[in-house]
Amino acid sequence: MIDALRADESNLYALVEEFFRSSFTTDNAIITEAVKRMLAAGGKRLRPRITLLASAACGGAPEQHLHLAAYMELIHVATLIHDDVVDNAATRRGVNATAVDFGNRVSVLAGDYLFAWIFKNVTANYPHPVPNILSATLADICDGEVLQLRALGDVDLPVDGYTEIARKKTASLFAASASCGAIMGGGSAAQIEALRKYGDNYGVAFQMNDDLLDMTADERSIGKPVGNDLTERKMTIPLVLALRAGNGAFRKRIERFYGEVDTEQIPAIVAEIAEQGGLEATQHAISGYVDRAKAALKPLPAGAAKEELIRLADALRAG
Amino acid sequence: MIDALRADESNLYALVEEFFRSSFTTDNAIITEAVKRMLAAGGKRLRPRITLLASAACGGAPEQHLHLAAYMELIHVATLIHDDVVDNAATRRGVNATAVDFGNRVSVLAGDYLFAWIFKNVTANYPHPVPNILSATLADICDGEVLQLRALGDVDLPVDGYTEIARKKTASLFAASASCGAIMGGGSAAQIEALRKYGDNYGVAFQMNDDLLDMTADERSIGKPVGNDLTERKMTIPLVLALRAGNGAFRKRIERFYGEVDTEQIPAIVAEIAEQGGLEATQHAISGYVDRAKAALKPLPAGAAKEELIRLADALRAG
Repeated sequence: MIDALRADESNLYALVEEFFRSSFTTDNAIITEAVKRMLAAGGKRLRPRITLLASAACGGAPEQHLHLAAYMELIHVATLIHDDVVDNAATRRGVNATAVDFGNRVSVLAGDYLFAWIFKNVTANYPHPVPNILSATLADICDGEVLQLRALGDVDLPVDGYTEIARKKTASLFAASASCGAIMGGGSAAQIEALRKYGDNYGVAFQMNDDLLDMTADERSIGKPVGNDLTERKMTIPLVLALRAGNGAFRKRIERFYGEVDTEQIPAIVAEIAEQGGLEATQHAISGYVDRAKAALKPLPAGAAKEELIRLADALRAG
Repeated sequence: MIDALRADESNLYALVEEFFRSSFTTDNAIITEAVKRMLAAGGKRLRPRITLLASAACGGAPEQHLHLAAYMELIHVATLIHDDVVDNAATRRGVNATAVDFGNRVSVLAGDYLFAWIFKNVTANYPHPVPNILSATLADICDGEVLQLRALGDVDLPVDGYTEIARKKTASLFAASASCGAIMGGGSAAQIEALRKYGDNYGVAFQMNDDLLDMTADERSIGKPVGNDLTERKMTIPLVLALRAGNGAFRKRIERFYGEVDTEQIPAIVAEIAEQGGLEATQHAISGYVDRAKAALKPLPAGAAKEELIRLADALRAG
């Protein structure tokens, strides 16, 4: 199982797809289409991967927890469907925009249906506290997303504010994926807490790396235009850290840019963020969270699953 | 308790408000404001009322199930917040439009947060199958709402199609309110099923009555413009039944009207629906569901709670 996971990333993709195809039944063609389309858009299936590895790291048999792993990915998919809801559909950019083809109303209902379907299955098949952890996680994700909306364009957002948002909107689901895998794998309280901490730190590093890729990767590899976060006036960690360097002219430049976004300026803005040390400081911050994620695994016995969790964390270390 | 419920409709309002005020904690001011505003918009709190009466009818102590009752209302509130999401905010009419003041994105997130908050509490505090019934109900509501979207302007919608939508989008939450109250009140399997059936039939009658009021009540009493359902091209039961009468000219008139809605024609359209017998046939249909709701209560012992459930059902009987 572990070897298969390591050898072939597409295995998990196939697993989630297959489970979903065989289990997600609704007579409602529009809901099914909206959900399947978002699922087919791909992704690295990191959340289910972490669930399975966490169960294995605690001595469980990961093949018994494939459904639980799939639910983790599907919670992520449901949040992506809701992310598609926009205030003006015409301005939506990027792929996967259910809202553009089906309308905002259908995006909302398809995401709600998927959440409900997941909770219906989880409450029927998993013991306390698994359903409780998943609903608390969904609350955290929403809270984080609203905090992020409020922080749009806020050049005064401190690093702590950024981290709170990343922890809630991104890391909470990684923490839940890891801790629920540990619970179902029969882990001790200390092991469950170790894996929760791993997921939490992994998730913050993951979000920071995602922010970095938005500025440094090419459009094809990330599936959206470079600097898309800047277009959306997000306060990403490279920008937050670049602003912390304290250059007044740079700050004014960002204030002007966020006052009226002009996408043609994005390459120059990214260059300035790099000049202010924002990219380098981000790599340093990611490294710190990767170290903490790995340190959290200490209570777990050595073995292939633990090694793979370490490898996944190290893969976020940029540069 | 029962006397208090009967004597003063505002008691339940106050109860849900108070529970919510003291329990719904989030540092997120935008989410809190969006949810509180929708809750403050009022309503008859019929869902929590039915939960408490169902528990009492099974011999339970309703005052022990106030929180459960409040969750029923809050599920309803969360769906209303999501109903506010529109494809073009400028065209939104009526009160309670969170989306207009806060934007679609916040409406989605506030509704999601409320769903998550409810499930977090329910999974922590209620035994199986209560959390499972609530998530299955949410799935039904979404399914029904999408079916309704698909049926907009569809003059061929049969009565069965209408009933399926009403059962899913409206009756499922009444059925859950009644059956969860019965479960927590210590009802037998037969009593729980009796109350589920009561809620199901009550809910269909409730939706039909709501459809009727949209055409016959005045704007102030229903809080939205008369004929609003016609503006939204909904296939309400008076219209479905009027079309079933088979008048070809009437059908063409409706097809033209739904081809391009002109609100000035609404009084004339309502008059034609009445002429085709749509209002009368609706009253007859409501009466049938009210009878079935009351008949479902047969396995329950006589008493104040059962009487009040009967009274609530009879109150839906129009005319």
